[in-house]
Amino acid sequence: MFLGTSAAVPTRERGLPSIAYVYRGTVVLLDAGEGTQRALQMYGLSPLRVEAVLVTHMHGDHVFGLPGLLQSMAMLGRKHLLTIIGPKGLHKFVTEAAKATYWLPSYPVAVYEASPGDKYRLPSGIEVEVFKTCHRIPSLGFKLVEPPRKPRVDLEAAKRLGIRPGPLLGKLQAGEAVVVRGRVVKPEEVVRPQPRLVVAYTGDTSPCSEVIEAVRGSDVLVMDATFTSDMAEEAYEEGHATARDAALVAAKTGVKLLVLIHISARYEDDEPLLSDAKRFFWNTHVARDGAKLVLRP
Amino acid sequence: MFLGTSAAVPTRERGLPSIAYVYRGTVVLLDAGEGTQRALQMYGLSPLRVEAVLVTHMHGDHVFGLPGLLQSMAMLGRKHLLTIIGPKGLHKFVTEAAKATYWLPSYPVAVYEASPGDKYRLPSGIEVEVFKTCHRIPSLGFKLVEPPRKPRVDLEAAKRLGIRPGPLLGKLQAGEAVVVRGRVVKPEEVVRPQPRLVVAYTGDTSPCSEVIEAVRGSDVLVMDATFTSDMAEEAYEEGHATARDAALVAAKTGVKLLVLIHISARYEDDEPLLSDAKRFFWNTHVARDGAKLVLRP
Repeated sequence: MFLGTSAAVPTRERGLPSIAYVYRGTVVLLDAGEGTQRALQMYGLSPLRVEAVLVTHMHGDHVFGLPGLLQSMAMLGRKHLLTIIGPKGLHKFVTEAAKATYWLPSYPVAVYEASPGDKYRLPSGIEVEVFKTCHRIPSLGFKLVEPPRKPRVDLEAAKRLGIRPGPLLGKLQAGEAVVVRGRVVKPEEVVRPQPRLVVAYTGDTSPCSEVIEAVRGSDVLVMDATFTSDMAEEAYEEGHATARDAALVAAKTGVKLLVLIHISARYEDDEPLLSDAKRFFWNTHVARDGAKLVLRP
Repeated sequence: MFLGTSAAVPTRERGLPSIAYVYRGTVVLLDAGEGTQRALQMYGLSPLRVEAVLVTHMHGDHVFGLPGLLQSMAMLGRKHLLTIIGPKGLHKFVTEAAKATYWLPSYPVAVYEASPGDKYRLPSGIEVEVFKTCHRIPSLGFKLVEPPRKPRVDLEAAKRLGIRPGPLLGKLQAGEAVVVRGRVVKPEEVVRPQPRLVVAYTGDTSPCSEVIEAVRGSDVLVMDATFTSDMAEEAYEEGHATARDAALVAAKTGVKLLVLIHISARYEDDEPLLSDAKRFFWNTHVARDGAKLVLRP
């Protein structure tokens, strides 16, 4: 669910950057621009369902929604852990904002200042992989890997081994070996691991090689496309990418779907961005506030 | 123009507290809750027209919209002075938020940490009087006095003194003495000063005597009415007022119009607040996001 899709200045149509990654009712926020708590509410997501906030970089448009969100969570009665992951400086920012406003959290907050290469496993089982991006200040991207799914049973293989649907298959799916007709059958003979969906979010970045390397193998890429390619110079100067750049990254890395985000206020409609990108990567979409992207394996 | 009218947690209908006082195109913001910059935009007010932001107290719901507003002003090309007035701690908050996000203002920002009794004259001529309010933390209220209007000519008096409509009257209106039929006529013999509209805003406060004293003689009172009077105990515990309290303050102080603001999320419509207040002060209104109150002398 795209909560805010603008670049640094919001517009009537686009709020400041934030994306809600939702997995079975659990929300991971990607960036928290000013207005994130209100957008969650507008789009029917409770702040209490947020288990983690991932911050790509310490520019105000990506982080000024965090202090208010933290305080509203407390007022809504939050008691459970909130994990916050982001670049250096994040912990001090959160602490100073709390101090300045006479606030102490009434629930546990864990702030991790992450480095490229770090991996986190959230309580829900969602895994977070941190990668380097290329902005004007220290910046991170995140790959979100969904929790492992129950492995699929290869019914042909099961039949060959004489296993009928029933409790034995359940055990094999749960990773246990079983004995069939006096022979030990290992799980890998019968069940096949399910692929896990991977969503990559770049935050603000120019289209550097580190991003291309990190994004490779993801299913979905959500990438900075502040401008169209006629403004590439401005984009690179400010550490951003164009719609075409994002499309080229998508094409090179074999992702299945590309979502353009962090759209400059100069674009009143999506058409210029789409036509800039689609020449290079057909399955491109422009994020809009309130748009929901439903992912199925 | 009421930009945000909620209590501490925003709702779908009400954003976090902020009011735009508009005088001939110049805007003075009263509080700057998260989302203020977006609300300005939604309601057609440019952040560049804001000459001052007055902050009543350092609770997050009243101040978390300030850093983003400051940064957006820069991105929109602001070059002229912005004045910020509020309680102790405001300067550090603004500075730390800027530092944390790698930001330096590209236009002059003056931050005044004010005390009750302080008076400021803004570049537009609007005057700000600071008064003490009674919240859980150090808190201020503001009286906004419109700039002096051109004095009105007493046509009867002018006629008696033999002055006809023309340049002589213009000089008298501008404060100069003139000679008529060999006699010096002073301005006060012919022109009458116009009353200046006074708007008082309490921010969050219980209905203490300091507030009553300070508000006396205002034309309009915009006051905390977080709850209805059946919840007076909760209100006072948290340093707030009820709708009835606000009405009683209005009635005691002789204001002409009362606007209730900082409305708890528990009130889905205005009726309970209005009926709570109107028994004591008839000319009561409940602020709504986007509502505009037009004041004429």
